Amino acid sequence: MPDRSTIYEVARLSGVSTATVSRVMGGGTGFSAATKERVLAAASELGWVPSGSARGLASKRSGIVGLVFPHLSTGESEYDQESPLFVDQVIRGAERAASAAGDAVLIAGAHGATGRDLALSVASKVDGMVIMARSLVERDVAEIGRRVPVVSLAGGAGRHTLDVVGADNHTGAREITAHLLDHHGYRDVVFIGGPRRSPDAMARFAGHCEALAASGLPVPDAPAASGDFTEAGGAEAMQEALSTSTRAPRAVVVANDQMAFGALTTLRANKFRVPTDVAVVGFDDLAAARHTRPGLTTVRQPMRDLGEQAVQVLLDRIAFPSAERRQVVLPTHAVIRRSCGCTGRG
Amino acid sequence: MPDRSTIYEVARLSGVSTATVSRVMGGGTGFSAATKERVLAAASELGWVPSGSARGLASKRSGIVGLVFPHLSTGESEYDQESPLFVDQVIRGAERAASAAGDAVLIAGAHGATGRDLALSVASKVDGMVIMARSLVERDVAEIGRRVPVVSLAGGAGRHTLDVVGADNHTGAREITAHLLDHHGYRDVVFIGGPRRSPDAMARFAGHCEALAASGLPVPDAPAASGDFTEAGGAEAMQEALSTSTRAPRAVVVANDQMAFGALTTLRANKFRVPTDVAVVGFDDLAAARHTRPGLTTVRQPMRDLGEQAVQVLLDRIAFPSAERRQVVLPTHAVIRRSCGCTGRG
Repeated sequence: MPDRSTIYEVARLSGVSTATVSRVMGGGTGFSAATKERVLAAASELGWVPSGSARGLASKRSGIVGLVFPHLSTGESEYDQESPLFVDQVIRGAERAASAAGDAVLIAGAHGATGRDLALSVASKVDGMVIMARSLVERDVAEIGRRVPVVSLAGGAGRHTLDVVGADNHTGAREITAHLLDHHGYRDVVFIGGPRRSPDAMARFAGHCEALAASGLPVPDAPAASGDFTEAGGAEAMQEALSTSTRAPRAVVVANDQMAFGALTTLRANKFRVPTDVAVVGFDDLAAARHTRPGLTTVRQPMRDLGEQAVQVLLDRIAFPSAERRQVVLPTHAVIRRSCGCTGRG
Repeated sequence: MPDRSTIYEVARLSGVSTATVSRVMGGGTGFSAATKERVLAAASELGWVPSGSARGLASKRSGIVGLVFPHLSTGESEYDQESPLFVDQVIRGAERAASAAGDAVLIAGAHGATGRDLALSVASKVDGMVIMARSLVERDVAEIGRRVPVVSLAGGAGRHTLDVVGADNHTGAREITAHLLDHHGYRDVVFIGGPRRSPDAMARFAGHCEALAASGLPVPDAPAASGDFTEAGGAEAMQEALSTSTRAPRAVVVANDQMAFGALTTLRANKFRVPTDVAVVGFDDLAAARHTRPGLTTVRQPMRDLGEQAVQVLLDRIAFPSAERRQVVLPTHAVIRRSCGCTGRG
């Protein structure tokens, strides 16, 4: 049997993904004639023949990949549900990667133990599944992982044993905090946190603290206040942060954009000007972050790319079940608008 | 065979959907013990026994419904792709209705003739499909309709023969235009249109014209300018509307919110104040419409409910293939913020 890792060489040489290589070599569909030619030429040049099992898997597939995301909303308001905007982007990215490979995506919202039945039902219909953070408990992820290949997205359950795809939350939060400290010279910078069980929220708080420490500032044990990633939760947490201190902080790092929108509303209601009195930054770079006045300085995480990469890693795993475990961390970067005190765009 | 319409009585009496009734009676899953009890009690009270074919269909189902949406984006910017925000909401609504019935949703983005293969592949894996406007050409929708039950969403292909679910675009556009004419007394009100082949965009322009006619104003043959439903397209169309007239219109009705965001940018760049110099209204009520300054007055269409209702109608159709054809039109309503000149919220 040829070295499995050679598929990566073939993919690199032909300029396509390993999933496409496996589909071309396995006689699948979902690629152009030109792509097929490039892949076959590269495989020929490298003397690569795919293993029988990989070929078999590629041709016996159902052509469906599953995506399970956290179903956390109460359904009370379409405007303001926990993380839907982030999840929407992930869904679209997953669909894009799957359709490029000729596959379709089966989606299902689940939360905790109650999502188990639906997730197991999905698992029985797909070639593999992407499971997002906080959609299923660890035990259920493990059970599904024994049935089909699984990729853990955004630091969810199974992240220590499965293929994982996530964004660099830590670096993003550290850099945006450093921008407030170093570029603007603010000293009184506090953090408004997300849900306690969110790996994303925890990593962002850790990155924030690292920047404080690097500037020689005291590092708090916990966020000044926390919310549930909704706009209403952010408004309440900002109010709490204002109430528990004798004076308003000079700058606030909020764990996600939706909560930052709520914080802006609370500050306005309390007659604080942003950024003159209090600077505010968020995390995610949702579409609406460009439309607030002032425009929201935030950390862009590649939400759609997360979904796309997760499906890509999953397709690779389906084709090559015993390949080495992969951990993909996508970069984040600061998007400077005006809510931090800069005079740039927005 | 008992009267098929009786299922609606059972559903009404037990306070659940017809799809749930058919699932309970067919021995399916995805409902609580209490629901089952209520349905059985109602069926017993009405002396209703489901037909054999309906029971058979309910139990032989794959438990997957398909949703095909228009894949129109160029992929250049995550911020600004045609209609993704609207489609995102529809996907989430569809998932909500499906998961309430114990089903999962298979999603696929398609556009025109090129989406045919993927859509046919999806059709082979599902119990039925919801097909959104502008995702497939009429011929392909007809072909899929011969294989599985199909619901046409938002005025798409097949809307004259299939079950259809849509929003009341006409009334929404008429009312928001009437608000500008009657409440604000504006006379010089123009329309910035959407894509020529969009049934939604055409219905909105027609509603706008009806309001003009009702006020005794001249009715234009075509929109003052048109865009492609993207923010960039709206910015360009607004510029075109400004260029082709000797002076700026007093108010602009824009065919969707994303284009209205672009129009706001163009007006700002041309030193027009909104709403003092030019009033602007949109259509959709996207989350970001609350965050612009001034807040965007717009027409709320129930995007998530559209997806939910479409799946609900599809599940009914799957259970009762020969029931009468249904047409569901969901109401729209004006959301008044400040971009029209009102001093309300936002």
